[in-house]
Parts: sequence; C-alpha cells; structure tokens
Amino acid sequence: MRLIIGNKKYSGWSLRAWLFARYFNIPFEEIRLPIYTSAFDEQIPTYSPAGKVPVLHDNDCIIWDSLAICEYLNEVHLAGKGLPSDIYARAQARAISAEMHSGFAELRKELPLNCAYDKGAVSINPLAKRDVQRICEIWRTYRTLYGQQGNFLFGDFSLADAMYAPVAIRFHIYEIPLATTERAYLNTLLALPAMQEWIQAGRAETDVLPSEER
Amino acid sequence: MRLIIGNKKYSGWSLRAWLFARYFNIPFEEIRLPIYTSAFDEQIPTYSPAGKVPVLHDNDCIIWDSLAICEYLNEVHLAGKGLPSDIYARAQARAISAEMHSGFAELRKELPLNCAYDKGAVSINPLAKRDVQRICEIWRTYRTLYGQQGNFLFGDFSLADAMYAPVAIRFHIYEIPLATTERAYLNTLLALPAMQEWIQAGRAETDVLPSEER
Repeated sequence: MRLIIGNKKYSGWSLRAWLFARYFNIPFEEIRLPIYTSAFDEQIPTYSPAGKVPVLHDNDCIIWDSLAICEYLNEVHLAGKGLPSDIYARAQARAISAEMHSGFAELRKELPLNCAYDKGAVSINPLAKRDVQRICEIWRTYRTLYGQQGNFLFGDFSLADAMYAPVAIRFHIYEIPLATTERAYLNTLLALPAMQEWIQAGRAETDVLPSEER
Repeated sequence: MRLIIGNKKYSGWSLRAWLFARYFNIPFEEIRLPIYTSAFDEQIPTYSPAGKVPVLHDNDCIIWDSLAICEYLNEVHLAGKGLPSDIYARAQARAISAEMHSGFAELRKELPLNCAYDKGAVSINPLAKRDVQRICEIWRTYRTLYGQQGNFLFGDFSLADAMYAPVAIRFHIYEIPLATTERAYLNTLLALPAMQEWIQAGRAETDVLPSEER
C-alpha cells in the first residue's frame, strides 16, 4: 500500500489520512510530492485522477480524498474500529468530520497550516474567529460527552480526531487562546508520537510556499 | 424522522440528502427553512449546532451535513444498500462523493443552482470549465465501468448519484454540452420522479436570492 502526500510542512489534507494510518499502525509506503511545484503537476496525474493529495494505492485500487481514504482503511484494515461503535456516536463523528471537510474556509485562509511557523499570535478577521469558536464548541461538546471513555473526541482515537489534527497545529502555532477542556484535547493530539513525527519532518522541510506563509 | 432543508430552488446541499431518502422511500417529515433569511438565522440554531441545512433529526440524534446524513441513512435504514457492495467500488463511490463535497468551488460560483433559471447557456471561466470536464470524466469513467449493471454511476442508485444530482440540474439549466454517455446519465438523473418532484417544487417557490441568480 502506498500513500502519496504533499509537503508535511503545509499539507493538512495529507496529514489527516497519514495520521489515521499511522496511529493504527497500518503499514504503508510514503511518497512525498511537494505541492504547487512543476514536479507535482507532472506526476500527480499518474497517481490520482482527481489531481490532488492525499491519494492511496492499495492493490489495483486508487482512493483519493482524506475522508474516503480513512473510511476505506477503517473498513478494510480496522474492521470498523476507526469510528465509534455506537451508531449515534458514529453519525456524530461523521457529521463533524464532514463539517471540517467542506467548511472553515476563513480559518484556513487566515491561519494557513505551516509546521515551521514560529512568530506567534496574529489578528484574524471576525469570520475566522467564528470558525475558531465553532471548532472549540465541537471539541468541548464531545470531550464533555465522551470524556469518561478516553482522551479523544469520542473516547478512543477515531477518524474525527484525524480530521481535526491539522487545526490543532494551527491553534498551537498561532497561539489561539483556549479554555481548559479544549486545551487538554489539543495537547492530547500534539503529544501523539505520530503527530510529533509529522511536525518534526515538516519543520525540517526547506521548501517555501509564499501562499502558505503568514 | 425530520429532515430540515433550505429552498428547493437553490439548496443543492439539501437536495442531496432529500433525494437519497426519497429515492429509497425512507419516510421523513420535511421542514423547509428558506436560506439567507432572518427566519433562517433565528430558527437554525434550534435545529442544528452547525447552523446549516440539511440537518436530520432521528429520535434524539441530530445529524448534519449531506454526506454524514446519507451515511447514517445507509447504515440504519438501508442495511448498506445505499453504497456499492463491492469494497473497491464502495471506496470509489466515497472518493467521488468526497471530491464533490469539498471541491468544484468555481463551478458552484459560475453556475449557481437555481431550479427556475430559464435563460440558457452562459459563458464560464476556465477554472469552472475545468470543473465541468472533471465531472464529465467522473461520469464517463463509472458509467463505462458499471454500465452493464444499471443506469447509475455504480449500476444501482447510490450515495454518489445523490451527491452529483445538483450538478445535473446545473448542467441542464445552463445547457452545458455533453457527450453521449454523460448526456444519458444526466437524463437518467433528471427523469427520476423524486428529481422531478424537487425541481417542480423549486420552480414554484417565489423567493428570490440575488446571490444565487445569474
């Protein structure tokens, strides 16, 4: 199985699928293809019909998009344990995962993901602030509901945590103020060995994409 | 079970979940909440923590986002028959569904969904043209692969068809030129009784949203 990803420094979409596979110790070969380069434009059509990372190759099957990759890995390699076992909890996990998947555009724009960013807090516009508040509300809601069952959003680590991992890095590097419950959850995500591995690799990358710097 | 939707004239996200439930004859009560109105802003927090339509209420469970709603209905009401039974086909169905869920922003902007639009073809920018081409490529690929098994993308109607239903209306009203395979698939979608019901109801709505007109 091969997972094609973008720069670790910048590609939050890649991090989601990579972290999900890594957390559950699903073995894969990693191919790194730096985004917004001519090499990317040349090579990505040979890997993905959608022209984007991440993309997973498993036997003859090509699966793209972070959400579809995680659903596939969950079914084929985890016998379903990558999502909550309770049907209502599972529906909620998919709801907040899909909300992240198509939403929070202002937050992405105002707080670009950059593992090597080290200049601290920035001011953001009211729409991005609303995105931050909504994410905090999500974290608080599920940490309160499932706090007795484990340290992740639904107790055990799930697809939903993978979807919110890039935003944890954003909140950390831009020093977003957080209440106790949200802060504890952010620290849980950041302390994962797989997250540390990704962030360190991202910091070591030397490519600079002006559009993703702030 | 209650499904809260936006205007039928404009809300493609609502159409996806509504069509999926309707096609499979899953009974639900429909609540229509016209988007971008003060009534919407006032009432939506009582229905959805994410503040958006569609949102499904089933017993005490609130599920939002078109993709998560369809996955839930598929598991709870359809015993899985809302997605292809083959694991690789199912992964592909989720891949193109997720691609639609987070992508094709230029197409949405250039060809706003409006069931009552009747002014015909318009010129669109190159990025929107690329979106149109990619959607045609998706339709052609799966109609060619699964054409022997039925008239939908993966043979039988699935979540993937629901995700591409709004774009079928867009292609129809803006008279996008299509090759034979894509045209046949578009006609299949438009001929569904549930699609006709939605479009007729949308045309009968009298609300006008300037941002969604072209």
